Amino acid sequence: MNILFIMYDQLRFDYLSCAGHPHLHTPNFDRVAARGVRFTNAYVQSPICGASRMSFYTGRYCASHGAQWNGYPLRVGEQTLGDHLRREGMACWLIGKTHMKADAEGMARLGLSPDSLIGARQAECGFDAWVRDDGLWGQGPDGFYDEKRSPYNEYLKSKGYPSDNPWADFANAGVDDEGNIASGWMFRHADKPANIREEDSETPWLTSRTIDFIDQATGPWCAHVSYIKPHWPYIVPAPYHDMYGANHVPAATRDAIERDDPHPVYGAYMNNRIAAAFQREEVRQKVIPAYMGLIKQCDDQLGRLLDHLEATGRMDETMIVLTSDHGDYLGDHWLGEKELFHDPSVKIPMILYDPRPEADATRGTTCDALVESIDLAATFVEAAGGTVPDHIIEGRSLLPWLHGQTPAWRQFVISEYDYSSTPVCAQLGLEPRDARLFMVFDGRFKLIHAEGGLRPMLFDLATDPQEFHDLAKGDAHGDEMARLYGCLHQWGLRLSQRVTRSEAEIKAGRGRSGRRGILPFLYDGSEVPEELVAKYLGRAPARYLDEE
Amino acid sequence: MNILFIMYDQLRFDYLSCAGHPHLHTPNFDRVAARGVRFTNAYVQSPICGASRMSFYTGRYCASHGAQWNGYPLRVGEQTLGDHLRREGMACWLIGKTHMKADAEGMARLGLSPDSLIGARQAECGFDAWVRDDGLWGQGPDGFYDEKRSPYNEYLKSKGYPSDNPWADFANAGVDDEGNIASGWMFRHADKPANIREEDSETPWLTSRTIDFIDQATGPWCAHVSYIKPHWPYIVPAPYHDMYGANHVPAATRDAIERDDPHPVYGAYMNNRIAAAFQREEVRQKVIPAYMGLIKQCDDQLGRLLDHLEATGRMDETMIVLTSDHGDYLGDHWLGEKELFHDPSVKIPMILYDPRPEADATRGTTCDALVESIDLAATFVEAAGGTVPDHIIEGRSLLPWLHGQTPAWRQFVISEYDYSSTPVCAQLGLEPRDARLFMVFDGRFKLIHAEGGLRPMLFDLATDPQEFHDLAKGDAHGDEMARLYGCLHQWGLRLSQRVTRSEAEIKAGRGRSGRRGILPFLYDGSEVPEELVAKYLGRAPARYLDEE
Repeated sequence: MNILFIMYDQLRFDYLSCAGHPHLHTPNFDRVAARGVRFTNAYVQSPICGASRMSFYTGRYCASHGAQWNGYPLRVGEQTLGDHLRREGMACWLIGKTHMKADAEGMARLGLSPDSLIGARQAECGFDAWVRDDGLWGQGPDGFYDEKRSPYNEYLKSKGYPSDNPWADFANAGVDDEGNIASGWMFRHADKPANIREEDSETPWLTSRTIDFIDQATGPWCAHVSYIKPHWPYIVPAPYHDMYGANHVPAATRDAIERDDPHPVYGAYMNNRIAAAFQREEVRQKVIPAYMGLIKQCDDQLGRLLDHLEATGRMDETMIVLTSDHGDYLGDHWLGEKELFHDPSVKIPMILYDPRPEADATRGTTCDALVESIDLAATFVEAAGGTVPDHIIEGRSLLPWLHGQTPAWRQFVISEYDYSSTPVCAQLGLEPRDARLFMVFDGRFKLIHAEGGLRPMLFDLATDPQEFHDLAKGDAHGDEMARLYGCLHQWGLRLSQRVTRSEAEIKAGRGRSGRRGILPFLYDGSEVPEELVAKYLGRAPARYLDEE
Repeated sequence: MNILFIMYDQLRFDYLSCAGHPHLHTPNFDRVAARGVRFTNAYVQSPICGASRMSFYTGRYCASHGAQWNGYPLRVGEQTLGDHLRREGMACWLIGKTHMKADAEGMARLGLSPDSLIGARQAECGFDAWVRDDGLWGQGPDGFYDEKRSPYNEYLKSKGYPSDNPWADFANAGVDDEGNIASGWMFRHADKPANIREEDSETPWLTSRTIDFIDQATGPWCAHVSYIKPHWPYIVPAPYHDMYGANHVPAATRDAIERDDPHPVYGAYMNNRIAAAFQREEVRQKVIPAYMGLIKQCDDQLGRLLDHLEATGRMDETMIVLTSDHGDYLGDHWLGEKELFHDPSVKIPMILYDPRPEADATRGTTCDALVESIDLAATFVEAAGGTVPDHIIEGRSLLPWLHGQTPAWRQFVISEYDYSSTPVCAQLGLEPRDARLFMVFDGRFKLIHAEGGLRPMLFDLATDPQEFHDLAKGDAHGDEMARLYGCLHQWGLRLSQRVTRSEAEIKAGRGRSGRRGILPFLYDGSEVPEELVAKYLGRAPARYLDEE
């Protein structure tokens, strides 16, 4: 069996028709959900691209792998999906974005050449790269944001788009009334069609690369197909740019009470520039239809990919996963972007299709088990025929749920956010190590703990599903807070770094030293079978040369 | 300046005359204390050889480095004292024991050859090995406990001791009345003189190797001189074997109340074979004088080393540290060995001499700051002229104390014990990951938290300095327990794995992406200086080849 591990960037959990979106019709996402299981309570380990992905790819919490924000290198030697899957005879390929930053310093310290197979895999977060393109070719006075090569830009140039950065000038820009570039970086242009042939835009391009990969692949493989859309710039080619409009834009899920004595971190975010933009209705009116158009295009391209799998007979031998690295506030809670822990940011789509007969009983169902993104790594290892190394991978396999079982399961999910690299850290006068947030969600109550001596936040999603009322502002709910803090503290003491000895190895290794002469409890040796002390008994010692 | 980092194995904090021992005179330990500072509240990160040492050598807690017990490999890539010191131009050498187990699997995964300099250093926990000998050459039906070569045994063979294992047959055995080997593994032989020339026994041998090293060393160096004694086998050559006797053996520090409803882990340990042995007074009467003799020999050999430093003018340019990897119950608390958290086990000697003028004001003083063994790694980096990488090293430099300052300091120390590889884990029906203990000590109260749903232990060393009364047996002290649990939980959420980005790098890296074109908050571009959006503005796009 193969695994198609498809990830979209910044795709909200509720912007799919199978998730109940009233206007956005995503028949191909729905198609996979109808054949598999849609997990309705899935959360990322950090609501930011880089850290979230490092958790997906290691199966470990951010506090365990340490690559806690965008551009923080994943340390050399940290085991990844590629390590675990190749051990089971399954290849592990990348098509698209990882946001991986190689630990160049660590690789140099260990003498690993980036040109070697081992070094290349370390640098690519364990993947073999069919295509590596992180999808954001921003460019400013200091140069490109991403200094690696861009296969997408190279493709566009080969297709005749005349620019040094066709991603910026064509794929992510329209044309204004004066005939100039109308950059998709600017929300006012979000409703313009991107100035590119639709089939050359990012999502179709990556889908074509995926089809190329699949057509030549042999042996069991896991392919991580990792799209940049619907992440900004929010602009999409015709015909998607005007498929949706003002009548499809919901009112923002926000309330004045959220602005009243807000948590200091939340308050700082509500005052930042992207929040200010998304507090303007004209921004939402332009951006959200573009965002929906991008998702519609993603759905059409997913259809193309699924059709190809069907046509080539691969649908019955390929597990398919559809997910996202985090959500998008889109103005909800007075915010834009992600980073904090309201559901629009931290909750993700999680649709799994397992083609095998064991999964027949659950096809087309939903499952509300508390899922963490790191469960996918465990799921894939098990799907590849392995035993999950649970002294390394902290997630749990979802296969029991897919196969109709009800496994003993976690009672709460954890997510983390390290905001030390953002302006908020300095605004609040914190040292980097103190600029950390932790979310604990038990399915009803959501606690956000803030390091650095800041107060917490607490939401009751049963009585306040829109997460408007921060119950920590008052004095009640002490019992709930204590209970959730108990969960957080239990998690803080988890076993996470004993990565060189498994549970099984420990059990098998007990008691061996006695048979190798380590017997620190003997009075006279009669306490143990003679075999164990034979080397210490009986013989007259040969004299050594000079007798005293 | 050089650093002589001297460690003894299993040396109790109170078995030195400068620490108040009424009978054991250790003038050379005292000599260093008189020139430096003796820290009276120093604790190891785990009261077991392997895990304790891995913490010393990484400057990190056991839960951070993961090598939580003897023989658990330290994972490849984990930075060590050698990495940090060589970065500052200081060599880092080993003479003696580390108990390091190479992460062979990880090294193979990264393609590191054990024969390369990098690979050898990984395998030796970051040290360059002048002499690597872990000092325990036990031998049983399954072979040697330690399968590496033994420089000490090779030395003995070269000196004419005719045996395949002269360490066992001569250095650690006497001769009984029948002329047979009287193995030091058996407590009844502890009072016999070891059947070896005193100068060939382990402590003098290693001291000679140390002098050899020092005499040829150039450039700033740190030498970790790591003795096996006074760790068992408890046997010592003449004249040390009968320097001490029954009148020097204190009554065991133990009370019947400890056996009344003991904590389940403590109860299991009180019933194990070594505890049973040390509950017999005839065992203490034989072993403790041998233990004292071994320490006396250590002291004499330390004197030899100090004399050599004085004679060669190196005393004024060498920082000296005297410490131990853990203690020895010797029958206190109904126990033998170490592993648990009473002071005789978890508290260690910590004597530092800094030859520089900045340390003149504190010479001959004691300091009761709460010290963790991992503070040495930070101290050495600073002594070598570096800045402590506090995103990696979790200890804190002791130099401010040595230099007469009163730095902001920790309020509690943490120690851990993973007993999953011991019989107690199975006896209590626990899975390995649950067989973990945590100690929190604030200078007065000592909390021991046990994972796996077991109850805690609590001692008040102000009212109960002998640690007889487990206050957690009753219902009082809830406030103290809550406070100490708060400390433990705060520690559980510490930053420990973000090892690829320092605090300074994070501060310096903020706000850079805006100058590289990442501007996800623009409505029309007027929000920022034109320089930042120049690449996104103005120009008429060249048409691409086929006009729509």
